Amino acid sequence: RINGERLWASLMELAKIGATPKGGVKRLALTDLDKEGRDLVVGWAREAGLSVTVDQIGNVFMRREGRNPSLPPIMTGSHIDTQPTGGKFDGNYGVLAGLEVVRTLNDQGIATEAPLEVAFWTNEEGSRFVPVMMGSGVFCGAFSLETAYAARDTEGKSVRDELARIGYMGEQVPGRHPIGAYFETHIEQGPVLEDADKVIGVVPAVMGLSWYDCVVSGMEAHAGPTPMGLRKDALQVSTYIMQEVVKIANRYPPYGRGTVGMVQVFPNSRNVIPGEVKFSIDLRNVNDELLNTMHEEMLAFIDRTRSDSGLAIAIERVSYYPPCPFHPDCVGAVREATAKLGYSTMDVVSGAGHDAIYAARLAPAGMIFVPCKDGISHNEIEDARSDHLEAGCNVLLHAMLERAKI
Amino acid sequence: RINGERLWASLMELAKIGATPKGGVKRLALTDLDKEGRDLVVGWAREAGLSVTVDQIGNVFMRREGRNPSLPPIMTGSHIDTQPTGGKFDGNYGVLAGLEVVRTLNDQGIATEAPLEVAFWTNEEGSRFVPVMMGSGVFCGAFSLETAYAARDTEGKSVRDELARIGYMGEQVPGRHPIGAYFETHIEQGPVLEDADKVIGVVPAVMGLSWYDCVVSGMEAHAGPTPMGLRKDALQVSTYIMQEVVKIANRYPPYGRGTVGMVQVFPNSRNVIPGEVKFSIDLRNVNDELLNTMHEEMLAFIDRTRSDSGLAIAIERVSYYPPCPFHPDCVGAVREATAKLGYSTMDVVSGAGHDAIYAARLAPAGMIFVPCKDGISHNEIEDARSDHLEAGCNVLLHAMLERAKI
Ligand SMILES: NC(=O)NCCC(=O)O
Ligand SMILES: NC(=O)NCCC(=O)O
Repeated sequence: RINGERLWASLMELAKIGATPKGGVKRLALTDLDKEGRDLVVGWAREAGLSVTVDQIGNVFMRREGRNPSLPPIMTGSHIDTQPTGGKFDGNYGVLAGLEVVRTLNDQGIATEAPLEVAFWTNEEGSRFVPVMMGSGVFCGAFSLETAYAARDTEGKSVRDELARIGYMGEQVPGRHPIGAYFETHIEQGPVLEDADKVIGVVPAVMGLSWYDCVVSGMEAHAGPTPMGLRKDALQVSTYIMQEVVKIANRYPPYGRGTVGMVQVFPNSRNVIPGEVKFSIDLRNVNDELLNTMHEEMLAFIDRTRSDSGLAIAIERVSYYPPCPFHPDCVGAVREATAKLGYSTMDVVSGAGHDAIYAARLAPAGMIFVPCKDGISHNEIEDARSDHLEAGCNVLLHAMLERAKI
Repeated sequence: RINGERLWASLMELAKIGATPKGGVKRLALTDLDKEGRDLVVGWAREAGLSVTVDQIGNVFMRREGRNPSLPPIMTGSHIDTQPTGGKFDGNYGVLAGLEVVRTLNDQGIATEAPLEVAFWTNEEGSRFVPVMMGSGVFCGAFSLETAYAARDTEGKSVRDELARIGYMGEQVPGRHPIGAYFETHIEQGPVLEDADKVIGVVPAVMGLSWYDCVVSGMEAHAGPTPMGLRKDALQVSTYIMQEVVKIANRYPPYGRGTVGMVQVFPNSRNVIPGEVKFSIDLRNVNDELLNTMHEEMLAFIDRTRSDSGLAIAIERVSYYPPCPFHPDCVGAVREATAKLGYSTMDVVSGAGHDAIYAARLAPAGMIFVPCKDGISHNEIEDARSDHLEAGCNVLLHAMLERAKI
């Protein structure tokens, strides 16, 4: 069994770096604060006797040697970058749970046949730089190192320059690194476990995701003198599409999701009929055929809206990954460890993307969820219970040992 | 007859200050560019022999003395501030038409019995600071100088500080200034004159206006893991209110108007369900009873939406003025001048608010409209024909002379 207090203390220590007044954390990828967080975790790893390597996209691998160093490592990990108004647990928990597994094995003097590795991946959140889940995406070849390097934040700073600046541009070529199996612990970021009063979520799969930018172009005109019948109001037309995004998701329960999260109105003046509206669309489903049906229905609705309204409507897909079912061996290992330890449990499909979906392209992978308060994440008030975090870490310990062999 | 070429040249000269790439003007109230525009117009006034006074809210009065200085002046005016993506004519035409009337009388050596004044009023547009038509509103006592001074832009800068900064906080107490009659020339900002192929719009009345801020508060949460049924999506709820604003206006043709022009979404992130949405509502009608019915229907819809959705919805009225019928004497003077000059004409109800509605609280007032291209205003592509602008200015000349007596 792992040491829950030590895990909690490490989480609270790391959360001080970038702490916000409302109890959250703002530690955006490749900022000075990210460097400080990375240095702290790497320091802890060295204290625990781990060897540390960094790859060219800044992914960090902290290795505990096995009796048979030629075996591919059993890996766990997550990320330590946060949302602009993020919490203490999203990502950080997965990294520090891995460290706690190693510390526990050290305490008990337990060696494993296969090596163990704890990884943290660069820019999972995608808040400062797109694409999201950048480090693990480059690692598994979902997109190239050059694409990632070229990404820029809103101030025009590039991933390449910022990575070099904070001293985390390593030498290792991303992905030249066999993996035996990959596990990731994470807070659920949704309300399912808490509602069902369960401690451990076994994650059979992660939903696929499609992201779009939609631009509706009308004609800006004065809100007073322009008769209702002569308007080309880009916002009014947009509202019907925004509603359809939710209606489409509701047609495909229980795993359809549809969200419009970002909206910009031009010129955004009280007495001007909006001439242009830009907004994001986020569609998800755990079934790729249904995700594709949702995609088609949305495009068809936009076509109808375009001809009904006479306004120009542009729609562009800006991100996509298919649903990711996890490997039966890893899902099984999580399920068995949970049963052995006697925690209440249920299956929870992940609605959020995780580095595990990219790791899953290279090796058998699985995830372990624990509840978070009110299902809230991507919010400074994100919270989780210490006993739940401990339970998830115990499951991780046993699942990893099952794969690494004592 | 006035000099149409000189009027056009002055309009084009003023339009250089804050000129935008698309041929429009961005010269927001109390910015450095506003100061530059003010300085240019004041310079022209001095060249034309006018005396200039500035009041405490920055309204500028440019006076041509009459044979009888104790008579209240016959005034004309408008504004030179613009929308963020505004045109060259909105407001500026009314001010420079007044200046052209004076220049013409100077050329011809014509004196008037009553003094003439050309005014430009501070922050008519209401884009940077609310309330709209601020200078004329303070002048007529619609709201207090303190209210106006306290208004802040989105960066937190106040009217008081910005007025002092650009050097246009005058000494004169606003409103201590009798007026004999007030005329304002303006582009129509709507399509009615152009559709009917008429040159001069005689304006019997201006629609009343009600402005609101609406804030819908839900719960921000992750767009992936949060099931559709458990969301408190502030944007989705907002879209139904946004649509109702237009539906209400459509129920009261031909003079009902409903517009949502400004929207802010928080936190405005692609994968976060919006926790809060703020938007503006603009309702208008030329009949105060109908405007009130529209107001009541909107509040009732918001009440129903609040209880149906369970979300908190705040609605606050931030501006209101009732419909303003103009004075028969001034409407008559415009009608007669138009007939005498032989221009084609029709009556046009103004959907836009104008400084004239506040001036109308202190003196008989009337307005003269000329067509603008495609009825478009509050847009960089706003355009008007030089011969139409000249015609409107000729009508202004004759209407003012009729009231001021030669
Ligand atoms: N876990 C997480 O927040 N990932 C970001 C990508 C997503 O929106 O699912
Ligand atoms: N003329 C004009 O644009 N006035 C601003 C107030 C309004 O929205 O009507």
